[in-house]
Amino acid sequence: MRIDIITVLPELLKSPFEASILKRAIEKGLVEVHMHNLRDYTDKSYNQVDDYQFGGGAGMVLMIEPIDKCISALKAERDYDEIIYMTPDGETLNQKTANTLSLVENIIILCGHYKGVDQRVRDAFITKEISIGDYVLSGGELAAAIVCDSVIRLIPGVLSNETSALTDTFQDNLLAPPVYTRPSEYKGLKVPEVLLSGNFPKIEEWRENEAYNRTKRLRPDLLKDQ
Amino acid sequence: MRIDIITVLPELLKSPFEASILKRAIEKGLVEVHMHNLRDYTDKSYNQVDDYQFGGGAGMVLMIEPIDKCISALKAERDYDEIIYMTPDGETLNQKTANTLSLVENIIILCGHYKGVDQRVRDAFITKEISIGDYVLSGGELAAAIVCDSVIRLIPGVLSNETSALTDTFQDNLLAPPVYTRPSEYKGLKVPEVLLSGNFPKIEEWRENEAYNRTKRLRPDLLKDQ
Repeated sequence: MRIDIITVLPELLKSPFEASILKRAIEKGLVEVHMHNLRDYTDKSYNQVDDYQFGGGAGMVLMIEPIDKCISALKAERDYDEIIYMTPDGETLNQKTANTLSLVENIIILCGHYKGVDQRVRDAFITKEISIGDYVLSGGELAAAIVCDSVIRLIPGVLSNETSALTDTFQDNLLAPPVYTRPSEYKGLKVPEVLLSGNFPKIEEWRENEAYNRTKRLRPDLLKDQ
Repeated sequence: MRIDIITVLPELLKSPFEASILKRAIEKGLVEVHMHNLRDYTDKSYNQVDDYQFGGGAGMVLMIEPIDKCISALKAERDYDEIIYMTPDGETLNQKTANTLSLVENIIILCGHYKGVDQRVRDAFITKEISIGDYVLSGGELAAAIVCDSVIRLIPGVLSNETSALTDTFQDNLLAPPVYTRPSEYKGLKVPEVLLSGNFPKIEEWRENEAYNRTKRLRPDLLKDQ
């Protein structure tokens, strides 16, 4: 899988891809992530990539021309399955979308910044608009990193133990059951006895009940989606 | 405002706080962000902070003892308004939560990793559990960065133009209207004429209509919440 990220702030995205699971996935050759600085695609003075809104109002808007140039240069090299724009009014990311995206070959992720991109970019070039949630961020960069993390960890071979992702919250529309580790007692706080019993069918039953009850209590909406 | 982030991967969080709006907010002294490496709070060999799950199963769990030590050390220095744990089964972050958090003095954000933290940590120390959306990440670090970004940008003085945040998507339960910038025509793609008219009451009316129609088409659920 190859991911091309278009941004005005490539330096903001440096460390998330140089640590932990994303770093290992890149080193293993399971995914390529390329950053493209939008300022390399403008011929305006001072590398200008944004301008004031037509009609007035606070906040700058990213211009269509450098984005067109950058996307066109990438599309000349290979076909893309999706050209994604990160925006709070996009389709809300969920585990199903992450699963689907983990199966494609090439994607572009365009990060907005300030007030976003010229609407004509969205109308003409974008195939999918994704929001990571109902809140506003200072730019699409961290949102793009979230999409990458949620997707890349699902690529076979990325997690050392693949069953780990299969038992995650949301994979079966249930929240995960509580987990405990050593010590079995800490300042009077004890681990539930069943988990120390060695009786695995009983442990499995306990976990299923806990997952169901936690979902019913905290997120009854997930149960209705089934 | 002061934010203390507890993590096993402080290096992952480096660049998001060294760029753009978060960097400027820190430089202006409007917010302090401190990273705490959980491995500095263990006395086990190899700086061990995680262990296998009781009852078996894939994925490691962060232990209670180093987390207790770290949180206790911080609480000895000052009072905290919230001790937040980032987890996909937490309360889903939205703009209202971001607004509320932007008004508090001191918060701790604990990042899970692998399968999460020992449930006793959540029961004993955590005052608020936050999810940034219905998808699983490889750790809570990027989710913590999202919370910080959504909150810090709302602190008065952080954005150069404060009205910018007030006209954001979600602040009035509406998606933002489309935005356009120069040139007014690009490869045959034109900016809506009203925005070039200079008639500001008409422009305002157009924007309100577009915002309402876009919300009705893409996110009718937001209109129901009002």
